[in-house]
Amino acid sequence: MSELPAPYNVGTRPSGRAPDQLRKIKMLPEYISYAEGSMFIQVGNTQVVCNASVLDSVPPFLKGKGQGWVTAEYGMLPRATHTRSAREAARGKQSGRTQEIQRLIGRSLRSVINLEALGEHTIHIDCDVLQADGGTRCASITGAWLAAALAVQHMLENNLITKNPIKEYVAAVSVGLIGGEAILDLDYQEDSQCDADINVVMTGSGKLAEIQGTAEGRCFTVEQLNKALEYASSGIQELIELQRQIVDFAN
Amino acid sequence: MSELPAPYNVGTRPSGRAPDQLRKIKMLPEYISYAEGSMFIQVGNTQVVCNASVLDSVPPFLKGKGQGWVTAEYGMLPRATHTRSAREAARGKQSGRTQEIQRLIGRSLRSVINLEALGEHTIHIDCDVLQADGGTRCASITGAWLAAALAVQHMLENNLITKNPIKEYVAAVSVGLIGGEAILDLDYQEDSQCDADINVVMTGSGKLAEIQGTAEGRCFTVEQLNKALEYASSGIQELIELQRQIVDFAN
Amino acid sequence: MSELPAPYNVGTRPSGRAPDQLRKIKMLPEYISYAEGSMFIQVGNTQVVCNASVLDSVPPFLKGKGQGWVTAEYGMLPRATHTRSAREAARGKQSGRTQEIQRLIGRSLRSVINLEALGEHTIHIDCDVLQADGGTRCASITGAWLAAALAVQHMLENNLITKNPIKEYVAAVSVGLIGGEAILDLDYQEDSQCDADINVVMTGSGKLAEIQGTAEGRCFTVEQLNKALEYASSGIQELIELQRQIVDFAN
Amino acid sequence: MSELPAPYNVGTRPSGRAPDQLRKIKMLPEYISYAEGSMFIQVGNTQVVCNASVLDSVPPFLKGKGQGWVTAEYGMLPRATHTRSAREAARGKQSGRTQEIQRLIGRSLRSVINLEALGEHTIHIDCDVLQADGGTRCASITGAWLAAALAVQHMLENNLITKNPIKEYVAAVSVGLIGGEAILDLDYQEDSQCDADINVVMTGSGKLAEIQGTAEGRCFTVEQLNKALEYASSGIQELIELQRQIVDFAN
Amino acid sequence: MSELPAPYNVGTRPSGRAPDQLRKIKMLPEYISYAEGSMFIQVGNTQVVCNASVLDSVPPFLKGKGQGWVTAEYGMLPRATHTRSAREAARGKQSGRTQEIQRLIGRSLRSVINLEALGEHTIHIDCDVLQADGGTRCASITGAWLAAALAVQHMLENNLITKNPIKEYVAAVSVGLIGGEAILDLDYQEDSQCDADINVVMTGSGKLAEIQGTAEGRCFTVEQLNKALEYASSGIQELIELQRQIVDFAN
Amino acid sequence: MSELPAPYNVGTRPSGRAPDQLRKIKMLPEYISYAEGSMFIQVGNTQVVCNASVLDSVPPFLKGKGQGWVTAEYGMLPRATHTRSAREAARGKQSGRTQEIQRLIGRSLRSVINLEALGEHTIHIDCDVLQADGGTRCASITGAWLAAALAVQHMLENNLITKNPIKEYVAAVSVGLIGGEAILDLDYQEDSQCDADINVVMTGSGKLAEIQGTAEGRCFTVEQLNKALEYASSGIQELIELQRQIVDFAN
Repeated sequence: MSELPAPYNVGTRPSGRAPDQLRKIKMLPEYISYAEGSMFIQVGNTQVVCNASVLDSVPPFLKGKGQGWVTAEYGMLPRATHTRSAREAARGKQSGRTQEIQRLIGRSLRSVINLEALGEHTIHIDCDVLQADGGTRCASITGAWLAAALAVQHMLENNLITKNPIKEYVAAVSVGLIGGEAILDLDYQEDSQCDADINVVMTGSGKLAEIQGTAEGRCFTVEQLNKALEYASSGIQELIELQRQIVDFAN
Repeated sequence: MSELPAPYNVGTRPSGRAPDQLRKIKMLPEYISYAEGSMFIQVGNTQVVCNASVLDSVPPFLKGKGQGWVTAEYGMLPRATHTRSAREAARGKQSGRTQEIQRLIGRSLRSVINLEALGEHTIHIDCDVLQADGGTRCASITGAWLAAALAVQHMLENNLITKNPIKEYVAAVSVGLIGGEAILDLDYQEDSQCDADINVVMTGSGKLAEIQGTAEGRCFTVEQLNKALEYASSGIQELIELQRQIVDFAN
Repeated sequence: MSELPAPYNVGTRPSGRAPDQLRKIKMLPEYISYAEGSMFIQVGNTQVVCNASVLDSVPPFLKGKGQGWVTAEYGMLPRATHTRSAREAARGKQSGRTQEIQRLIGRSLRSVINLEALGEHTIHIDCDVLQADGGTRCASITGAWLAAALAVQHMLENNLITKNPIKEYVAAVSVGLIGGEAILDLDYQEDSQCDADINVVMTGSGKLAEIQGTAEGRCFTVEQLNKALEYASSGIQELIELQRQIVDFAN
Repeated sequence: MSELPAPYNVGTRPSGRAPDQLRKIKMLPEYISYAEGSMFIQVGNTQVVCNASVLDSVPPFLKGKGQGWVTAEYGMLPRATHTRSAREAARGKQSGRTQEIQRLIGRSLRSVINLEALGEHTIHIDCDVLQADGGTRCASITGAWLAAALAVQHMLENNLITKNPIKEYVAAVSVGLIGGEAILDLDYQEDSQCDADINVVMTGSGKLAEIQGTAEGRCFTVEQLNKALEYASSGIQELIELQRQIVDFAN
Repeated sequence: MSELPAPYNVGTRPSGRAPDQLRKIKMLPEYISYAEGSMFIQVGNTQVVCNASVLDSVPPFLKGKGQGWVTAEYGMLPRATHTRSAREAARGKQSGRTQEIQRLIGRSLRSVINLEALGEHTIHIDCDVLQADGGTRCASITGAWLAAALAVQHMLENNLITKNPIKEYVAAVSVGLIGGEAILDLDYQEDSQCDADINVVMTGSGKLAEIQGTAEGRCFTVEQLNKALEYASSGIQELIELQRQIVDFAN
Repeated sequence: MSELPAPYNVGTRPSGRAPDQLRKIKMLPEYISYAEGSMFIQVGNTQVVCNASVLDSVPPFLKGKGQGWVTAEYGMLPRATHTRSAREAARGKQSGRTQEIQRLIGRSLRSVINLEALGEHTIHIDCDVLQADGGTRCASITGAWLAAALAVQHMLENNLITKNPIKEYVAAVSVGLIGGEAILDLDYQEDSQCDADINVVMTGSGKLAEIQGTAEGRCFTVEQLNKALEYASSGIQELIELQRQIVDFAN
């Protein structure tokens, strides 16, 4: 196990990144052979496998309503973290954190997918974290959109649907506040030291699908929030450019 | 069961309230005799009992660290809603929504409480919704702060602690976006029809402890978010004035 | 938390009540707006919310048999008691005590309701204890009958049924034995000190729907049981008089 | 699977038994080799294995209080009944009925055992029903007392305790009411047809340890209850005579 | 509780049995009245009740496929062992060992039963261990085959099926390796001391339905495995001769 | 989702492999940065991540006995298979199959590790299947040994132990029987069509740590088992050669 680095010095990020600089990103499509849409996404040292499964059914509350559903589940391998965490399947339940994250991923995708155009299909996305170095929920959302988009391409090619139900790109990034200053795309060391953590989910047209800002030690001002949104917006447009290289819907 | 009213007409709120107008608020302290801090809070037709228990122990991860903890649990009576929901104790687990809300309440309180000044005590807050007409998480936070403050008074009076660990008031309110316009403090009917739902937790000094904004049908702009924050800020200062009539820490 | 009073002195009840005297009772109908039948019942310091929901379905074992069902669930807010109890929803299961009580409430109501006359509807009653000072199961039964009766009125008014399926009033009270003497309607302090605890559920015509007598330290004679039944019978007729002021079926 | 017999004709019992006649009883001690006290008890066609284990620990709430504990668990083999019931271990929880019965068995034994004289030991009794033809809870109590008494003999012989902690014999029997008439010791066919079911737990000195009477279709009078108690009392003294042939404490 | 005997001396078995000698076997059919097939099987001091229930349904994955299913569940009474084990129903889940064993029993039976010839029926077998002295899984398989065969006879007699779906006898035995030498049919004392434990499930025609060999301390050679198979084969043919005395299908 | 290939033709394997030929193997050490030992193993299209965590504690039953423990957990990503399987963490329990496999992995490793030489440490291995094309339990064992060996190197380098506790290499492979003929290292298509499936765990010195043979449709002879063992033995020595290239303990 690698040593944790020395305390964070505001102004110089441990990685040497500029305050508004993303970590290095890798996006590998078709990572798993079986899934209708499969992505590996790496953001710095955070690695997530996102698999989208196309099911020809919908949850009970939507039966017979002529529309589809998009949902997500999230998990971490027990040793995705510095020290081993208990396996949720063995503990017999998903933690509150896990449920919170998987609900967020599902909502983020549904905000840009036309459920009527999906027909009575469900796109079920599984985000499983192989290695966690901060930002797993954001990486999951960015990867999940790609997995869903690949699954939609599969559905179109196989005539399961006739029209692209995806209305927009969507990606996510975190911004932290340290000493009142914003820094983009926190790694684990930064995340554990910042005063506030703001996760932003934004579309290709620059609109907010979701924002979750949490004070962790120090409450923050509306001005600081707006600075964070500015950084997030620029980071997300970079991520969407990378998504476009994998799936280009020309919209 | 009362009939649900006719579809929402943007511009005139069903209740006739102005866009930035809170619902009628009732706050009753010492609602339950046994709890160290007990509040009943009513916001419109939403009714929540908030009880704060003082425990002389801390969770395992804090043992021996010389600091305290503040945590919360949330529940709804099965018939708090228009139609009966299954009892979580009978289903054998808390829903993802429940866990998300109780984690939010706990974080919101911890953002304004000095855990070191608590000593090795836990303030455990239970928020139980008797009747739900929208905004239960915000009413819970506003009431939970009061219950915690009453419990802190009890601790000071009984010499369990020597110094007030509460740094600030905190209260919460929701803002919705309908047709691009913001409206403050959504009731259930408004909540189920709005394009986006933004929950804001703010302190007496006007800082954000938490913000959670979610598109429900239509993504939103940073400008709309800022308009929502403006409404939220004014609503929360009203709520804090009411809190101050129950507990006045003169800070 | 208020101090527990000094040890119980047989002959003089802590409250000064006569041996066969009920605590002060409050019954408030229409406590919650949404439930088809809703009651708040207070017996001394014990407070219970009883909500009856009318469902247009029956449990699987009754499907297609042309009859209805009446069932109950019971819960206590975590801080209904002197010290906080763990929330059953968080623990992931209902205790044996909870299940025992909710089964008792359901049986007591079914003993006076004609299930055929209900049609294929279920009356599902939720009894939730806000504050517990002894006798919560008895207060729940007395309140649950009222909630059910209000729900039946709602069903009659809405033509869901054409004939009143309720055959009799039903109410419940506890009797304790201390030093061989009976005392009616135990509060928590008395309950924790008595030799035996006898819960009696009786109808308006003075018949037993249920009797549960338990030695807690000292076994008891048939004569003592009969004395307890005498006290219970008179207490229950008082309770039924109060029920009649809320719902008068003239039978 | 044997056919269920024709409907019950009041006055003549299917078995030809007199109204106050017990079924045939078999009690076999030392049924299982390993348990400190082990009994097989058969009442008519109902067969229960009762094993008492002596543990040298007490539950957490009794640690260090210098007293012991007696508790019980109850189960039925899945095919103890006419049609197979789901295995509780596979369903992942014990039913409300199971919990109710095992709590009753434990209370019944504790009513005649001096817990201080047990020292810091637990007698843990397991009652497992091999075949169920009505009256399994009563057979379990009667057998459990014997298993506990054998375990106490083992403890005395092994000097784990110096004084017999058992104060009295205890046994149980059911009485049913059909058409207003009492009949003793119901088998399954009678049980499913009676108007009320009264389970009585009584000591060697004729005192009540527990009484549970439940209307099943028709509420009953105090006079009928007393008739049932008369039958129960005589049946229980017969059972205690049989217990005395296995364990004779001369008290 | 009987004392555990002195350490095992290779060459002389504690019981004085020859290395290839089975323990004493008892097989009692029609042990429980209600089950369509019911067996009590005793192998040395190991005692198992095996009940086969005939259900006129199949699991969801076989619905409408015109074939049947055979499955098994396994359990131990809490005091089947030298010291009490926690009741699985109370712990809320079956252990990995339990699930492993019940899956093995089900597979073993299905290997000799023609599921098509069963029609859309399930034979559900429950193996419950009353007393465990080693070899419970093998005794369960041998007894379960008999219970299933009795249930098949019941089905044939009641015209639920027209043709015997059982293709072969099947029985099971364990072989241990101690100091490199094989010994047949381990009791608990031997089992806890051997280097390897090999469970063999074999048919009347001498073929393997299942083999599970596990090193417990010392890995073993293919030659040792073959010696174990030789012992197992002869032991199993003895067991099948005993099965034939209960059910003789003349095949 | 790729189409499943046409039915299997005995004699020519779908892959064109010889009957005793392994699939292509890839073994990548240090796959995850945080684990003390981390391996990625690929066998054909089956991909498993094996992470070994070194914990400085032992399970309760070993506390204070001066020895260590080795255990394993197993899981599959929901979309590791052709169609999505439910996530075990969401279902709230591990399947019987999962538990069977993780117990097998743990036993296999313990058969070649000297637990005394580990000191009071636990090596906890997590095997997570990214993609499943048959043979996941065997690939997990082969990879788990490597992960454990890397963790042991870490322990030696960090002076947590002074002596290598690993006594032997261990690896595993499956052999199937189709039409009476053995074929080595089944892929999913072969696995679902074979008559019997034999999993063999063998050490570097050619001894059996575990053998599990199961008839799936057709029982098998001892001769066929021995043929399978011959193929398995040669395959496992190949696997161990590959292991040696990653970790060479020179024994």
